[in-house]
Amino acid sequence: MNTIKTTEINTHAGQQVCIQGWVHTTRKMGGIAFLILRDGYGTAQAIFEGDGSSLPAPESIVRLTGRIQPNEQAPGGYELVEPTVELLNAVIEPLPAALGKKELNVGLPTLLDHAVVLNRHPSRRAIFKLSAAAMAGFRQTLNARSFTEVQTPKLVGSATEGGANVFSLDYFGRPAWLAQSPQFYKQIMVGVFERVYEVGPVFRAETHNTSRHINEYVSLDVEFGFIENHWTVMALVRDLLDGIFAEITSRCEHEIELLNVTVPNVPAEIPAIHFREALELITAETGESIIGETDLSPQNERWLGEWALREHSSDFLFVVGYPMSKRPFYTHPDPENPTWSNSFDLLFRGTELITGGQRRHKYADYLSALETAGLPTEPFAEYLEAFKYGMPPHGGFAIGLERLIKQLCQLPNVKQATLFPRDMQRLTP
Amino acid sequence: MNTIKTTEINTHAGQQVCIQGWVHTTRKMGGIAFLILRDGYGTAQAIFEGDGSSLPAPESIVRLTGRIQPNEQAPGGYELVEPTVELLNAVIEPLPAALGKKELNVGLPTLLDHAVVLNRHPSRRAIFKLSAAAMAGFRQTLNARSFTEVQTPKLVGSATEGGANVFSLDYFGRPAWLAQSPQFYKQIMVGVFERVYEVGPVFRAETHNTSRHINEYVSLDVEFGFIENHWTVMALVRDLLDGIFAEITSRCEHEIELLNVTVPNVPAEIPAIHFREALELITAETGESIIGETDLSPQNERWLGEWALREHSSDFLFVVGYPMSKRPFYTHPDPENPTWSNSFDLLFRGTELITGGQRRHKYADYLSALETAGLPTEPFAEYLEAFKYGMPPHGGFAIGLERLIKQLCQLPNVKQATLFPRDMQRLTP
Repeated sequence: MNTIKTTEINTHAGQQVCIQGWVHTTRKMGGIAFLILRDGYGTAQAIFEGDGSSLPAPESIVRLTGRIQPNEQAPGGYELVEPTVELLNAVIEPLPAALGKKELNVGLPTLLDHAVVLNRHPSRRAIFKLSAAAMAGFRQTLNARSFTEVQTPKLVGSATEGGANVFSLDYFGRPAWLAQSPQFYKQIMVGVFERVYEVGPVFRAETHNTSRHINEYVSLDVEFGFIENHWTVMALVRDLLDGIFAEITSRCEHEIELLNVTVPNVPAEIPAIHFREALELITAETGESIIGETDLSPQNERWLGEWALREHSSDFLFVVGYPMSKRPFYTHPDPENPTWSNSFDLLFRGTELITGGQRRHKYADYLSALETAGLPTEPFAEYLEAFKYGMPPHGGFAIGLERLIKQLCQLPNVKQATLFPRDMQRLTP
Repeated sequence: MNTIKTTEINTHAGQQVCIQGWVHTTRKMGGIAFLILRDGYGTAQAIFEGDGSSLPAPESIVRLTGRIQPNEQAPGGYELVEPTVELLNAVIEPLPAALGKKELNVGLPTLLDHAVVLNRHPSRRAIFKLSAAAMAGFRQTLNARSFTEVQTPKLVGSATEGGANVFSLDYFGRPAWLAQSPQFYKQIMVGVFERVYEVGPVFRAETHNTSRHINEYVSLDVEFGFIENHWTVMALVRDLLDGIFAEITSRCEHEIELLNVTVPNVPAEIPAIHFREALELITAETGESIIGETDLSPQNERWLGEWALREHSSDFLFVVGYPMSKRPFYTHPDPENPTWSNSFDLLFRGTELITGGQRRHKYADYLSALETAGLPTEPFAEYLEAFKYGMPPHGGFAIGLERLIKQLCQLPNVKQATLFPRDMQRLTP
C-alpha cells in the first residue's frame, strides 16, 4: 500500500493510500466523526462512521488506510474515507494541555515545563519554522555576497570579553570559559576570508531576569573587511534584514497567517539618528531630561521605535555613535570626535535587535585601547596576533535569533521564541 | 576611482581601477617585480618597475591603483600595470611562517600555536572552504526533503547521556553540563517536526589523545520519524553524503585542485556488512581472532575500509548490527535477535565517520532499557515525557564535520581540519 504525505492527498483522489502521523484532533458531528492527522508536512482529515469513541487519543501515532475523496468542505478539499486505523504507539498519560485547540491556553511556566510536548502545538511549531527560515535567509543572503561560514570554538582559554558575565568550568584541571560571543574569532577570521559569518550558541552568565534576556541564545554573527566605516556595515544590515524577511515570507505563508504576523517592510534606507540627537529628541519631546546619559533605557528605545514609525513609517531605526565609554575596547572611535564611536544599535519595533559597528584594525590602537580600559594585554595575546599581520578596516554585527523572532511575532517574552530556554532558574527540559 | 574585486579584473581591461587586500607575495625578476594581491575573492597580479625592494611586506594591507592589461603569462590572463601603492595597515613582526609558498612547511604545534595567522595560508583556507561547502550541502539536501533546522541547548541540567565524558560547570550555584550531543533533543524534536537537523558544537571531556579526537567539534545531526528500521536511516545517509560531495564539487573546484583532493563517488548503494560477519571476515582473512569482540578497533576499521575498496570499489562501508551491549540505552534492538542492534557505523576510507541507527520509540521500552542499564529514570524525566505522548518509529545519525574533512583531504590529524582545535592541552588560540 502506497504511504503518502498528508500534503499529497489532493493528487491521489480515488486511490487507496496510507497516511501516518499524530492524531491531532478528533470530533464527532451527528453520526460521523472526524480525525485530523498531523505529520511532518501538514495535516489531513479522515472521516469515520459512528461517534468516534473508539478513535485513539490525541497525539497517538497511527497509520490510516483508506480512499481519498474530494470534499469541498474538507480542509484542502480532500479527505480520507472508510479508513482503517492501525495504532503504532499509544499515549500513556493525559496531555498537559490540549494541542488541538487554536490557542495554546497555558501560562509561561507550564509552557516551559512541558515544552517537550507543548512545542508540538501549531502555534509553537510556526514560531520555530520562522526561526529556521530566518537562519536560511541569513545564510543565503551572505553566501550570495561571498561570505564564508565558519565555526569557532565555544570553549575558550581566557575570560576576555567581559569577565563578570561568562560561565567558567574545569577543563582537564584548568579553568576554561564559555564564549559569550564569537567576537574575537570572527575578527580573526576576517584576516583569513575577509567576509565571514557564524550561526551558533552564545552563553551569558547575566543575572538579568527580563522578558528579553536568556542565558544561552543563538547568535547570527557577521564580520567583514574593507569597509569605509560603520555606514558600510549598516548598509549590509539593511540588505540582510531584507533577505531574512524575504525568505520568511516565501517559506512561511501558512505560519505567518496562523500567527497573524506582520512581516515588516525594510525601507530602502533605514532611518538613523545619532545617539546624541536621540537624547536631545527624547528630552525635548517627553520632558524627561536624559542629556548626558551614556546608554538608552528600554523605555527610551520603545519611545524611539514609536517615533521612527510615526515620523519615518519604519519598524527599524539605527541609533549611531554611542559613547566610546560604553562600548567595548575594540570599538572604532569616530575620527571626527573620539568621544563618540563608529558603532550602532538597530532598534526593531522599539527593542534593540542588533549591535554592531566598525572595529579598530591597527595593532598600536589595540595596545592603547587596552591600556585606556585598564586591561592587561597578556590574555589577549592570540587575538592581538591577528592585528600584527595586516588587518583591513573591518566591522560587523550580531543578531539575536530569538529576539528577532520575539519582535517579529510580538511575543511577550523571548523565552517563547526559544525551544528550550535557559534562564537563572531553568536548565531543563 | 572604481574599487573592484581581484576576481573582476578580467572584465576591466584598459580601465584604471583600485584593488585592495593582503600582499600575498612579492618577487623580482630582472628589472621588474611582481606583487600578488589577495582579497576575500581570489588573487590578482600587479607588476612594478624596479627590484621591488620598496614593496610592502607580505600580509600588509594595501590598495593598488593602476590599469588592467591583458597578459597571457599573468595568472588569469590579466594584470595591474603602472600601479601606485597605498599602505593601509603595515605588518608589525615577521610572520611565523611564509604564507606565499605553495606548502605551509610547519609542524603541527607551530600550526596550532599560530593558527590565527597561519590559517590564512591557501591550503588552510581551502580546507575551511570545504567545511563550509559540506555544511551547505548538508542543509540543502535536508531542506529539500522537508527537514526543519533546529537549535537545541548546549547547557543541560543532567549529565545523562554518558556521565564520565561531560564537562560540568557552575550554573548560578548549581551544576550544569555541556551537551555531548543533541541526541535527546533531536529525538524530542521528531515529536514536533517529524524530520529535523542541527549543526552545532558538541563537547566531549574524553581523555583520548589521538589523531582523530578533539574535545569540541561540530556535529551534523539528523533525526526523523516514520522509518521502517535502520535501513531507512542508512538510505538517507547515502543520499546526504551524495548531496554533500556534490556541493563540495560544485563550489570548490579550485580548492579541490589545490589540495589534490579525490572527492569520493558515493555508490548508489553503499555496501553493508553485519558486525558479526565483519568479525568473522577479519578473523578469517588476517588470522587475528577477534570473534566475540564487542567493538572494532581502529585497525579493524582500516582493514574493512581496504576490503570495501578492494571488493566493492567503495570508499564507504556500513557496519550494521553492533552488539546492544555496546550501544546506548535508546538504541533499538534487532527484533529478530535482540543481542544485536538496529544500528550502524559508516566507515569512510577506513575510519568511522557516522554513527546512527533506529531508536526505541515506546515509553515502556525506555523504562526497561534504563533498568537493564542500571540507570535511574529521574534524570531522564523530560526526555521520557516525549515518549508518553506518541513518538513514531524513528532514527538518525551524526556526522563529525572535522572528521569528514580530515578523511576527505586525507589529513594526518583531525586538528588540521579544525580552525582552532581544543584538546587536553590546548584551549587557545
